[in-house]
Amino acid sequence: MTARRAGRRPGNPDTREAILTAARTAFAEKGYDGTSIRAIAAAADVDPALVHHYFGTKDKLFLAAMNSPVDPGEIIPAALAGDPAEIGFRLVRTFLSVWDSPAGKAGVAMLRSALSTEWTARLFREFVTSQVLRRVRSAVDMKPDEAPLRVTLVASQLAGVAMLRYVLRVEPLASAPRETLVAALGPTVQRYIAGDLDGAPPPAP
Amino acid sequence: MTARRAGRRPGNPDTREAILTAARTAFAEKGYDGTSIRAIAAAADVDPALVHHYFGTKDKLFLAAMNSPVDPGEIIPAALAGDPAEIGFRLVRTFLSVWDSPAGKAGVAMLRSALSTEWTARLFREFVTSQVLRRVRSAVDMKPDEAPLRVTLVASQLAGVAMLRYVLRVEPLASAPRETLVAALGPTVQRYIAGDLDGAPPPAP
Repeated sequence: MTARRAGRRPGNPDTREAILTAARTAFAEKGYDGTSIRAIAAAADVDPALVHHYFGTKDKLFLAAMNSPVDPGEIIPAALAGDPAEIGFRLVRTFLSVWDSPAGKAGVAMLRSALSTEWTARLFREFVTSQVLRRVRSAVDMKPDEAPLRVTLVASQLAGVAMLRYVLRVEPLASAPRETLVAALGPTVQRYIAGDLDGAPPPAP
Repeated sequence: MTARRAGRRPGNPDTREAILTAARTAFAEKGYDGTSIRAIAAAADVDPALVHHYFGTKDKLFLAAMNSPVDPGEIIPAALAGDPAEIGFRLVRTFLSVWDSPAGKAGVAMLRSALSTEWTARLFREFVTSQVLRRVRSAVDMKPDEAPLRVTLVASQLAGVAMLRYVLRVEPLASAPRETLVAALGPTVQRYIAGDLDGAPPPAP
């Protein structure tokens, strides 16, 4: 793309939206790692310094582009810190606390939009991978060759709870007390993180 | 609604669609149990015998209204039959087999549509509850007061896998061999059905 400094948009209210639109396209099409602030600025026809000025880091820009009600970069490290033997329980409790809070409503909207088309699904997958799964992987001690599957198994359990409890509101899951679910789901997440994944069925009696 | 026999639609190609539309509205608004073939026929302005002629039972009409690629009424009993100690493994294997088959594509479309609005979510919740969860509950031996939560926990794990493996296609879950996932997810589903749900975290060392 040819630089057209003279034609670049000034810092007006439309500029922010133009940057967010360019960011969504870039993250969906090139992925998180393949996207730079510079490329987004070029696509939005603004100076990279303006993108930094409005949004800060690439992570923060991604959060804004997704209308994410929370920052996984703050929540996940807090949930993961502490006794490794209880990490699954803390992850479930933190996940449910966020979804039970006012942020949960925005979470439902985000999930709905994410699943609506092939394109938004790709953008959401990039978001989950770069902002959530990667952070869990880097904070938890797991064998490198097992870690990718383990974190997606954790995500599968938590995503399913989000879908049934908050989006579809299937009872009694929708109204179950949070700690009931921590007790029920905690061992699952704990096993996905640190337990035996080759769970052969019990031998026939 | 006043019966208007003379004005009722004959068996033309539009009639089928009118019945399906009336069925979707009724199931979403009154629920499965609160909906009768008679009420759907009245709303579609056709004779109830015509609804039976086109669709058979209320269950079959619900399947058609949802564009469900498979009949849970056939699949679930087959998956549940056999050794109770391995029921969780069989449920996971059956679930993945259906989604890995050509029917999975229609499943993705169904899930996308289900989550898109509050109204379609209500319809889908009614479908999952009446066609899937109820069948699991009646086929598996569980304490009556625990059964409702147990089956929704099973559903939460399977729904999350559907979302990550088939809709979002998050790797490595999306490409993992089916039996790898049966081994990883089977113990989870088995515990939700028959194990201890009050999984206190392990005591600190």
